[in-house]
Amino acid sequence: MKVINLDHISAKPLLPEVKTVMIEAIEKDYHNPASQHKSGEEAAAVLQNARKAVAQLLNCKTPKEIVFTSGGTESVNHAIKGVALANEDRGKHIVTSNIEHNAVIRSLRRLKSAGFVVTSLPVDSSGRVKPRDVADAITKDTILVSIMHSNNETGTIQPIEEIGAITREKKVIFHTDAVDSVGVLPMDVQKLGVDLLSFAANTFYGPAGVGGLYIRRGTRIFPLLDGGVQENNKRAGAENLVGIIGMGKAAELALRDMDKRLAHLRTLKNRLLTELPKTIDEYIVNTHPEHSLPNLLSISVQYIEGESVMLMLDDENIAVSTRSACATGSLRASHVLLSLGLSHADAQGTLVLSFGIDNTENDIDTFLKALKAVVTTLRDISPLYQKASKA
Amino acid sequence: MKVINLDHISAKPLLPEVKTVMIEAIEKDYHNPASQHKSGEEAAAVLQNARKAVAQLLNCKTPKEIVFTSGGTESVNHAIKGVALANEDRGKHIVTSNIEHNAVIRSLRRLKSAGFVVTSLPVDSSGRVKPRDVADAITKDTILVSIMHSNNETGTIQPIEEIGAITREKKVIFHTDAVDSVGVLPMDVQKLGVDLLSFAANTFYGPAGVGGLYIRRGTRIFPLLDGGVQENNKRAGAENLVGIIGMGKAAELALRDMDKRLAHLRTLKNRLLTELPKTIDEYIVNTHPEHSLPNLLSISVQYIEGESVMLMLDDENIAVSTRSACATGSLRASHVLLSLGLSHADAQGTLVLSFGIDNTENDIDTFLKALKAVVTTLRDISPLYQKASKA
Repeated sequence: MKVINLDHISAKPLLPEVKTVMIEAIEKDYHNPASQHKSGEEAAAVLQNARKAVAQLLNCKTPKEIVFTSGGTESVNHAIKGVALANEDRGKHIVTSNIEHNAVIRSLRRLKSAGFVVTSLPVDSSGRVKPRDVADAITKDTILVSIMHSNNETGTIQPIEEIGAITREKKVIFHTDAVDSVGVLPMDVQKLGVDLLSFAANTFYGPAGVGGLYIRRGTRIFPLLDGGVQENNKRAGAENLVGIIGMGKAAELALRDMDKRLAHLRTLKNRLLTELPKTIDEYIVNTHPEHSLPNLLSISVQYIEGESVMLMLDDENIAVSTRSACATGSLRASHVLLSLGLSHADAQGTLVLSFGIDNTENDIDTFLKALKAVVTTLRDISPLYQKASKA
Repeated sequence: MKVINLDHISAKPLLPEVKTVMIEAIEKDYHNPASQHKSGEEAAAVLQNARKAVAQLLNCKTPKEIVFTSGGTESVNHAIKGVALANEDRGKHIVTSNIEHNAVIRSLRRLKSAGFVVTSLPVDSSGRVKPRDVADAITKDTILVSIMHSNNETGTIQPIEEIGAITREKKVIFHTDAVDSVGVLPMDVQKLGVDLLSFAANTFYGPAGVGGLYIRRGTRIFPLLDGGVQENNKRAGAENLVGIIGMGKAAELALRDMDKRLAHLRTLKNRLLTELPKTIDEYIVNTHPEHSLPNLLSISVQYIEGESVMLMLDDENIAVSTRSACATGSLRASHVLLSLGLSHADAQGTLVLSFGIDNTENDIDTFLKALKAVVTTLRDISPLYQKASKA
């Protein structure tokens, strides 16, 4: 069964080269990088190579600024909780936005029960935070600003550089959840002006359950995982070396092939944007026309349910999602879409189309053809649509 | 270069069957188990199979009681911090022992800065906690007892069942760090009477950087990683499915081969214990003669430094350790050994010999021969030894 994966935001395929190094690592079966004998040193060298590749992808000053984690969620939890607890003597106020991933929202909720105060900023109808709002929200008690780089449901990119300039001036620690951007877009932590940046390997075709946190040298932060002295004393626990080796290779290839990949993804996205109006009517584009990921398009198809579209497309072996996979099972409409000003009804009709370097223009065409049929079928039985057509 | 690995406590080799399923998983390249389309459901089914295998190994009532983590350290942090924060309205007192792993010690240290009070119990000269001491330490404010199952430096096993009976009677949550026991010894969470049990896949020849936490149904605990709804809302983040699949297979084999493995390990340990007195003199055995892991022996060779022995054996392609790999780089003598009543000088002479199902009696003999030569060489240049011999 060949499935057309237009749900890359939930899972991207491993690159063949990544598979190869991971399989080699399993066959080689390294010892513990923390052990001081030769077998340990060999493992430590491999770990360091992966760290260098990832540090290069982000333009870190030194590989030591990279802490390997079990993925984007751990990185975000580490950044937010680690900074809060290490800096609470300076203040207990944190600034964030209304459209963050649940890893950010729920980490902050946890801190609120510990007495921290959180200001959550709105976004405009195009889904972007206003840097001016960040500046205005910062008080003398503010210890952290956490604003995501790109949104996992809409693909909209935030003005991180402008916010970075503000946090630098005001000497507030700045974290960005860049889980859906790193490895897709050129990323430079120096230019962005961030102190902490969360990322995940699968975004750039590395393994799931592996990620990292960039920690600018000198940033005051506690570990999230306390214990051994791994990761320069910043993250305890034996490393998932097979996964980290995969991430290192994926980082190397992401840097090498960035331009070529971007060109391909933009072609696919343009095709979608050009052909969609010829395929269906009455839909809303939730993704920013300019400031957005090249590999994601969110649309809300009116008068029908995205969930039904997803299931019917699944029958045609086309995988799409209606929202973040992390929020599966939740019955509530997406907080991100509601923040954009979408009605509950329109939010329910949302499809997140996320594609990758493995997709072809033919995949897009197959999807569009199937979408047309599905939307027609569903609207034929939609009382909402009947009512709206008659009006 | 063939290395004899007598440092299994730092890293155990992957079983061939585990390698096979991990490689198959990489080649198959599953989608996200949280996705609701067919590709996601396929991944979810594989995840569930692994959960069942692990649940069987521990005799859980339901696979839902298993939460997958990035390893023993995350499991321990989750158990301790998660219970503390979820139960602080009931009290802020925690009971532990002096010989815990740094993951426990440092998690508790973090809680102490948040106002929790920790009673740390001594061990007797054989390295064991007295259940009676646990009973005496529990007050009306006690919310958690955390005592390790077996010690990673000495191999000594604690009286967990007796302690479990006490915590049940007193209605206090009981966590055991069983990272070095699960998959080596028969483990039954019902018999042990624990509410939380931390484990790691590498202990039973699964991949490093993968582990889990048994959470008895009904135990009040917060997630450590907040975010998505994975792992029954107990641990957010996309899963390291390749690693988890490896752990599932390793769990299945550990259960199947438990008796055979135990017999082999006991043969090796007996050989070491029988031959050591014929090989070197003036050493202390730190491992309990009866209540101890079958795959670990800690000895303190007097008048010389364990570190020098380790390095000289490394030259002979024999890997041993002097202490926990997680504590590498620390200059202080092991808190575990000092707790046993060892002097600083004797603690410095410690060798942790940990072996596995891949070792042979021949490995033990090669080690003993090399050890004899190394100890002789080092004592010849040891002023301490010269002084002691003359006395």
